Parts: sequence; C-alpha cells; structure tokens
Amino acid sequence: MPLDDVRRKAMSAKEASAVLYNSSSKQKDGLLKAINRQIRGNIPAILKANRKDLVNAALTGLSAVLTERLTLNEIRIGQMVRGVNDVIKLPDPVGNVIERTKRPNGLRIEKMRVPLGAVGIIYESRPNVTIDAAALCLKSGNAVLLRGGSEAINTNKQLVALIKKGLKDVSLPAGCVEFIESKDRAAVLEMLKQDKYLDVLIPRGSHQMIGFIQSNSSVPVIAHGEGNCHVYVDSSADLSMAEEIIFNAKVQRPSVCNAAEKLLVHESVAAQFLPRAARRLRMAEVEIRGDTKTLALVEHAVPATETDWSREFLDLIIAVKVVKDLDEAIQHINRFGSHHSDAIVTRNKRRGERFLREVDSATVYVNASTRFTDGFEFGLGAEIGISTQKLHARGPMGLEELTCLKYVVHGTGQIRK
Amino acid sequence: MPLDDVRRKAMSAKEASAVLYNSSSKQKDGLLKAINRQIRGNIPAILKANRKDLVNAALTGLSAVLTERLTLNEIRIGQMVRGVNDVIKLPDPVGNVIERTKRPNGLRIEKMRVPLGAVGIIYESRPNVTIDAAALCLKSGNAVLLRGGSEAINTNKQLVALIKKGLKDVSLPAGCVEFIESKDRAAVLEMLKQDKYLDVLIPRGSHQMIGFIQSNSSVPVIAHGEGNCHVYVDSSADLSMAEEIIFNAKVQRPSVCNAAEKLLVHESVAAQFLPRAARRLRMAEVEIRGDTKTLALVEHAVPATETDWSREFLDLIIAVKVVKDLDEAIQHINRFGSHHSDAIVTRNKRRGERFLREVDSATVYVNASTRFTDGFEFGLGAEIGISTQKLHARGPMGLEELTCLKYVVHGTGQIRK
Repeated sequence: MPLDDVRRKAMSAKEASAVLYNSSSKQKDGLLKAINRQIRGNIPAILKANRKDLVNAALTGLSAVLTERLTLNEIRIGQMVRGVNDVIKLPDPVGNVIERTKRPNGLRIEKMRVPLGAVGIIYESRPNVTIDAAALCLKSGNAVLLRGGSEAINTNKQLVALIKKGLKDVSLPAGCVEFIESKDRAAVLEMLKQDKYLDVLIPRGSHQMIGFIQSNSSVPVIAHGEGNCHVYVDSSADLSMAEEIIFNAKVQRPSVCNAAEKLLVHESVAAQFLPRAARRLRMAEVEIRGDTKTLALVEHAVPATETDWSREFLDLIIAVKVVKDLDEAIQHINRFGSHHSDAIVTRNKRRGERFLREVDSATVYVNASTRFTDGFEFGLGAEIGISTQKLHARGPMGLEELTCLKYVVHGTGQIRK
Repeated sequence: MPLDDVRRKAMSAKEASAVLYNSSSKQKDGLLKAINRQIRGNIPAILKANRKDLVNAALTGLSAVLTERLTLNEIRIGQMVRGVNDVIKLPDPVGNVIERTKRPNGLRIEKMRVPLGAVGIIYESRPNVTIDAAALCLKSGNAVLLRGGSEAINTNKQLVALIKKGLKDVSLPAGCVEFIESKDRAAVLEMLKQDKYLDVLIPRGSHQMIGFIQSNSSVPVIAHGEGNCHVYVDSSADLSMAEEIIFNAKVQRPSVCNAAEKLLVHESVAAQFLPRAARRLRMAEVEIRGDTKTLALVEHAVPATETDWSREFLDLIIAVKVVKDLDEAIQHINRFGSHHSDAIVTRNKRRGERFLREVDSATVYVNASTRFTDGFEFGLGAEIGISTQKLHARGPMGLEELTCLKYVVHGTGQIRK
C-alpha cells in the first residue's frame, strides 16, 4: 500500500530525528563525510541508474530542458560532493543561544536554536537536490522525508541507497533520510496529512504545485513562491548604472526566480533612458512588452497585456512601464509583484530609503541587481531555497532557517505567586 | 452576503496595513492613546452592550465559567485600559536591524524587522482579547481582522466601534481594525481562504477548533495548542523543592495551558516522595490517577487510563507515573506531551542539561514551575498567545513575534558575474 508506505516513512523519519536532534556537530560532519565516501566510491552505479532515467525520458518525450536538468555526469557528481564538503565546513547552528535574560525572580531564560525535527521536501527533476537537501537537513540535525520527481526516480533511489549506506557506516538510524518511491500523486497528498510526524514541508516546484500544497497541507509549509521581480529606475538614477543593472537582472540567467521580469521607469528620464536600455536588451534578444508610453519610445516593443504585470516570464521577455513617481512605482510593485526581490536605482538617499522600507518584499535593493538573492551570494554558505512567505523564513534560507527556537529556563526552585 | 463581507474586510485590512506599515512609533502610540480615550469616555456604552450579551447568555444557558469570562465591569475595563498603556510603553520592534553583513563585493546586507501585514485573529468568549489583540497588532504595525465568539458579539461590536473612533481621531484608516460580525461558522471558513489578503492567522480556542483551522487554512497559521505539561522528579531532586513545584504547577491555576497535568517520578525516590506529595495535592482536592506503581504508594489514587497520558485535564486532576530513569521520562514526555512546557527537578547538572536539550518542547525548565510560561513572566511585556508549533514563533509570543524579517541590500551598482 503506497499510502501506508508514506505514513510509515514519515514515522520512521520522526523517530530517527530524536537521535539526530542530540547528535554532536562532529557526529553530523562524520555522517556527511561517510555519505561523500559512498558517492565517490559508487560513481558507475549512479551513472547507470541515471542512464535508466534518461532512457525513460527519451521514451516519454521529456523536454530538452528537463532532460538536461536530469542528466548526471562525473563533473556534476563532483559538484554534489563539493556541495556536501561545503556544508561540512559551515558552522552548526544547533545549540546556539541567541538571547539570554535574567528575570527579577532569578529565572535565567535562554532562547536556543534546536532542529525542527522531521522535514518533508517535495521537489522536481534535478537529482542533485536529493543530496543537497539531505546534507543541509542532516547538518542542522533534522531527519528528512524526500519526494523527488518521477522522471529522476532511478537516480534518486540510487543516491538515497548510498546515503543510507553512509548512515550505516556511522551507526545512525536509516530513517534519518527516507525517500518516497511511489510516482503516484496520492503519495504527495498523503505527505500533506502527516502533521503528527512531519514538522514542516518545503515544496520546491511550480507555482501551481506550491499553491495546491499550501491549501491542502495540515503540516506547516515554507513556500518557495515565484519571482516577479522589478527594477525601478528613479528620476535621479545614474542611467549607466541603471542600464547595467537591468541588463544583468534580465539577461544573465533569465530562467531563475531572482531574474527581473519588469522594468519601471520614472517619466522624467524615460525618453533618455528607455531607447538605449531597450537597444541593449534587444541585442540580447529580449522581447519588450510596453505600456503606451513605452511603446511611443521603444521601437520593436509590443503592447503589454494586463496579465503581463503579474506574470513571471522566466524567459527573455520583459514588461516595461513608465510611472509618474516613486509612489506609483511602489504601489505597482506591491500590487502586481510576488514579494520576492525588487530594486531601485537612484542617487537620492531619501527615495532609496523609502523604497527599501515601503516595498513589501523578501529582499529589497538599492543600486544592485536582483540576481543577488541567493544563499551563497548572501553569505549563508548554502541554500535550501528562497522563501516568499513571511512566517518563519523570508528570502534565502540556509542552515539557520532549518532550525527553530526553544526557551530554556534555569531555576532554583521558583514557583509562581 | 456574509462571505463577501469577510473578503471585503480582509481586503480592507490589507489596504490599511500599507499605511500602518509606514507609521512611526509615535503615530502608533498616539493611536493607542486615542483608543484608550475612547474606552475611558464610553464606559456606560460598553457596559450596556455587555449587558445585552449577558442577557443572551442567561437565555441560552451559557455555562457559569463562560458567563464569568464574558462579564465586564468598571474594574475589568480599567484593566483593559492599563493593558493598552503597557503596550504603549513597550519598545516598537519595527525597523530594528538584527543582523548586518558586508559582502566581498561591497553589498551591505541587513535583516530588518517589518510588520507581518494583515493578521487574522479568531478567538472565543473573553471580550478583553478584542482590545489586547488590537493593541499588540497596531503597535507592531499590523492591521487586524478579528473574529470573536458569538456570545460576546454586542460587547465586541461596541469595543470595535470605539477603536474605529480612535483611528478616526488620529486620521488612520478605519480598515486598520476590522471585525466580522457574522455568527455563522461559514464566516470562519471564508477567513481561512483569504491568503491573498491575510498574512497570518492566529486562532485561540479549543484544540479541536485549532486543529480544524490548521488543516483547512490556505493562510499560514500560528497555532496555540494545548498544554499537556509534565514535571519530572529526578532521583537526585531536592524533594521539598519538587513538592513545592508540582503543587504550584498543578494547583495555582489549574485551568490554564501552562499548568502541570502529569507528574513523573524516578523509581528510587517514589516511595519517599509520592505519599507526601500526594497528601499535599489531596488537601487541595486534586484527583490522582496513577500507574500501577503509584497505586501501590498512594492512597485514594485511581488507575490512570491509557488516554490520560495524552490528555490536558485543565482541572484538579493529575496523572502520576513512576519511571525507571531519565531516558524513560524524556521518551514519555516527547511521546505523550504536547510540546508546551515541561520541567525537571534535579540537583544533577548533567541530567538537567540532558532534559533541557532532549525534551522537544517550546519551553523546558530545570527546577522551576511550568506556570512561568507566559509573555509577562518572560519579560516580553505582553502576550498575543503561546505557540506550540515550531515555525516562526515558539512559546510565549510578544510584539517581535508579530513581525517578520526583510533583507535590505545597499549597493553601489553591483551586478552578478
């Protein structure tokens, strides 16, 4: 019964989490090293499993982009191993005391970081997520229940088998990393009901998939929403800087969530800025969709539709709007944006501060590209994803975001009057 | 249409939240003072509305306990006003920068506290929650959509009318505090769907009600679960201290979530400790339900059933178990407890530390009563509730827990290579 299997594995992860919860940093790093030894020692087996998935991909006509994401080779396996080594080098957040107070009655109260417990992760095609996510969860003391995409099932099974060998090598319970093999969508639905065993669910994938999970899960969810990111060019912007920033934010890697999807330009600099910025974007084959004022200034621009303003293109497309002032820019971003990453280009300090304060997004920038929203670029050393929700974690999530806080109270016999 | 009304009010709160988001501490304190002036100036109107509810309570046969909670008088209104004054005196967490880093490329990254946005609060009979919750949300820059118990509907309507007058007095939008008047349960269901407008839901009430909301809400929930709290008396405990602590934790106020519901005793001290602790508890009319070993030691004890171990009695009842060691105590608490507040009484430092680390609860104590789990006792100055979940907030929640973090990035033209 696949549904029993989901429940059983969630329970197994929860049980194992009690052991990890109390493992030292040294034990957890020892585990990650053992996993790396297993990966390095079994590259042919990994590639063989991956070839099975690639054959299936060819038979089922999986798209070229997805097939490319699915493909492993020795270089990519080497990257996985280096990723795990990077996690080993990160400081362990568990046990850190972030606040201490002493009350008048003598109670000493500490707020201490502890693991979340058992984390469920639902993801799609890239098999490297299996290793990355497991490494981050284990280092932060969490057990993990993984559910990867069906197109990578053979590769993922092989990788999880190696992780389990690594667990065995260091005498930690096999349940520390569990993996759901069922390709059935009902297995995902069953995961959403395991609030007794799973402390949090982190879904990574399409906006639709994440929205469905948020509406149907009794397990608390950390959502990785889409990125409809804006660059606003203010009247006082350094226009050369603005051109570099919008070009970088749009073109450097258009398929990712922190790429810019919208350009807003103050009307007083639109005539000067837009034709030259548009020429530069056109040279990189970016399609420009404009409002009426943009259409009057930019050759080759096509009219933007109303739905374009809230869309995440993930492609060489940008929608451009001329706004009359900072207020209109902020209102537009808060209304149509996805609260991911938004930037202003300005030399005016006061307007920069207003933008940073008033734009209600996980990450707000003055005079920099939105492309920096990333755990590595922010110095977290790793990333389990980028949260666009407000509770618990917002923006790039590293090891700390895989922990929670606990109040630890030291008394000497205090009772309440 | 009551359902349209819920959506309209959620939208109105969201719109108003943009104004509050950018209000200064001075403006927000000015608002709270205006609300207090309205309350103090309209005590007869509040009491008149409350009498309507009390008449309805008598007609519908509301229980004595709930009627008592519902009842207002001049003293209780005075307490409301003092509560708001206390919130005025608290420091405003909004705008605080809790972390700053500078990256090698020159980007300056700050993590800044900002309001959550629009908060939904679902609560039951006590009308003072209307004022307390509104004051805490407003001070932390959040708009709030309230849904109180139907038995307090007239009192709540009157209090919200006065809050709205206060908002008008200081020229802030009426939508900063919205209130759902419909007594229909469908109105609550509709609230759970307002993820477009509400950033978080905080339900306060029965375990069943909260469980239902967690399973059916697309808005992220901060759950205030039940408190099945334990006191464990270790073999090395100061037994007089242990007696004071269990007596206080059980008897001082048995109806609240941080009262002890379970007593675990190490077998080596059970014969010495249990008869005298039981006598003391019996004098306060506490019913003792014991496991087999307890029954052999304690006169008048009745057998505990299997379900007693996971129940929150909220009454003068305690279930008592003799355990063979610390491991069994920790396992029992993690398995049957509700992860709220648990205490060990011990003179052994190492065992105390193990208990604090390994018990997976929001608040863990060594040598103190569980009754201290409370925002005021912890020095937060106020409390919107006590969270038993792990995400976002855990344990007593004050103003900081009504905020979230935002990454604020200052650049000088950086683009990603």
